[in-house]
Amino acid sequence: MRPLFLICNDDGYGWRGLETLAAVARECDADVVVVAPDRHQSAKASAITIAVPLRAEVVHDEPGYKVITVNGTPADCVKLALDQLLDGRVPTLLLTGINHGYNNGINTHYSGTIGAAMEGTAHHVPAIAFSLGDHDPNADMEACKPWLRLVIEHALAHPFAPDVCLNVNIPCGEIKGLRVTKADTGRWMGEFKPSVDGYGRTVYWVTGDYQVADPTDTDTDIYWNNNGYISIVPCQLDRTAHSYRAALDALNRDF
Amino acid sequence: MRPLFLICNDDGYGWRGLETLAAVARECDADVVVVAPDRHQSAKASAITIAVPLRAEVVHDEPGYKVITVNGTPADCVKLALDQLLDGRVPTLLLTGINHGYNNGINTHYSGTIGAAMEGTAHHVPAIAFSLGDHDPNADMEACKPWLRLVIEHALAHPFAPDVCLNVNIPCGEIKGLRVTKADTGRWMGEFKPSVDGYGRTVYWVTGDYQVADPTDTDTDIYWNNNGYISIVPCQLDRTAHSYRAALDALNRDF
Repeated sequence: MRPLFLICNDDGYGWRGLETLAAVARECDADVVVVAPDRHQSAKASAITIAVPLRAEVVHDEPGYKVITVNGTPADCVKLALDQLLDGRVPTLLLTGINHGYNNGINTHYSGTIGAAMEGTAHHVPAIAFSLGDHDPNADMEACKPWLRLVIEHALAHPFAPDVCLNVNIPCGEIKGLRVTKADTGRWMGEFKPSVDGYGRTVYWVTGDYQVADPTDTDTDIYWNNNGYISIVPCQLDRTAHSYRAALDALNRDF
Repeated sequence: MRPLFLICNDDGYGWRGLETLAAVARECDADVVVVAPDRHQSAKASAITIAVPLRAEVVHDEPGYKVITVNGTPADCVKLALDQLLDGRVPTLLLTGINHGYNNGINTHYSGTIGAAMEGTAHHVPAIAFSLGDHDPNADMEACKPWLRLVIEHALAHPFAPDVCLNVNIPCGEIKGLRVTKADTGRWMGEFKPSVDGYGRTVYWVTGDYQVADPTDTDTDIYWNNNGYISIVPCQLDRTAHSYRAALDALNRDF
């Protein structure tokens, strides 16, 4: 049977990054099913929808290529696809993106593109998230195609650990190479800009300056992206800080 | 100066779990500021609001105790509090919950209560998330109070690692003890129940059966909760699978 690629994003249906990723997937001699949010769902992390039901609309259907939109988050899309929309088939790979804008450093934490990939990981489906360092809806996604192919072909030839997905960030312009690295652990500072709405009330717009964890660290995704390299970070689903358990031993007790 | 406790939840303002947590915090000889979503924000993970501005409404203000609601996610509340609403003070502790319902196993991943705590961690504020194994809005939260005090006092006496928060799950009924453990790495299966809406269209309600990773594993939060123990799991913000980097070495290259 042909491989099956499931594709999702967080910018939503109709965005150029999603279309570029689907185009590359279709060139891989695979069946391709896109299940994407029907509207913008950026910064939704791993949020899921619990108060209202989901609806799935098939917007394109031809042999080997189907596109479905869902009124939910990126994680909702992946969950619904795996449980209901793939006729029981298990995807060979889940590909998410191409996000319009980097998902490196702590942005990994908020990204719906990563949230969708992590959802695949939770269901033991190997997943790769792709992002380009350009927020423009008209960003030149064509230049990403060879790098997408390279990473996808590597993933097909070298299956991942079951609890890891790959987070791939691609700079704009000339690409100097690829680096497997770690996510920067910095943070956003000065995150809100107070403003006044049309009725004289204070409102707050999210903004901020990103502060890297250690400006001398040359082994982070942000460092490599800023220097013209594609970064590849393996991300784990498991959040337990195993090495820190012993420090909490004094809390163990029986009554 | 008195310690400052920042408090948030994901069920939203007015829920009993939030009120119970605030009451315990106020008994700790600390200033207490509650910054909570103005409506239900469960399962929002670390989602943040980027398309609309945030508004903060002070709904209670007395010396040493202030309550503010925000039209955003739990992570938004923590971000806005730290950047704008605390008059430049840095909280001694961020406490989130008490969630109505467990946040153990993979549910950690979707929980807004954990998302809020993680946001504190991202800003180097020690954070503890509390959840009770009862979804009832009228759940008996009084019984949690001694356990909250115990964990909070321990945290004040033993500061955490900077990139770790604590996830505390409390069973209903008789408590047999406390265990520092790891999050179960299981998953939800059969996650959607198809249904028909009032207009004859198919819709999907999220539901499912939780499958633990290994039923013989007696060292997980779910195991201990099911056996009457409070579980305490240290959760890390860093998602890089450091030990898996070497397996991807073949992707490193220069052009």
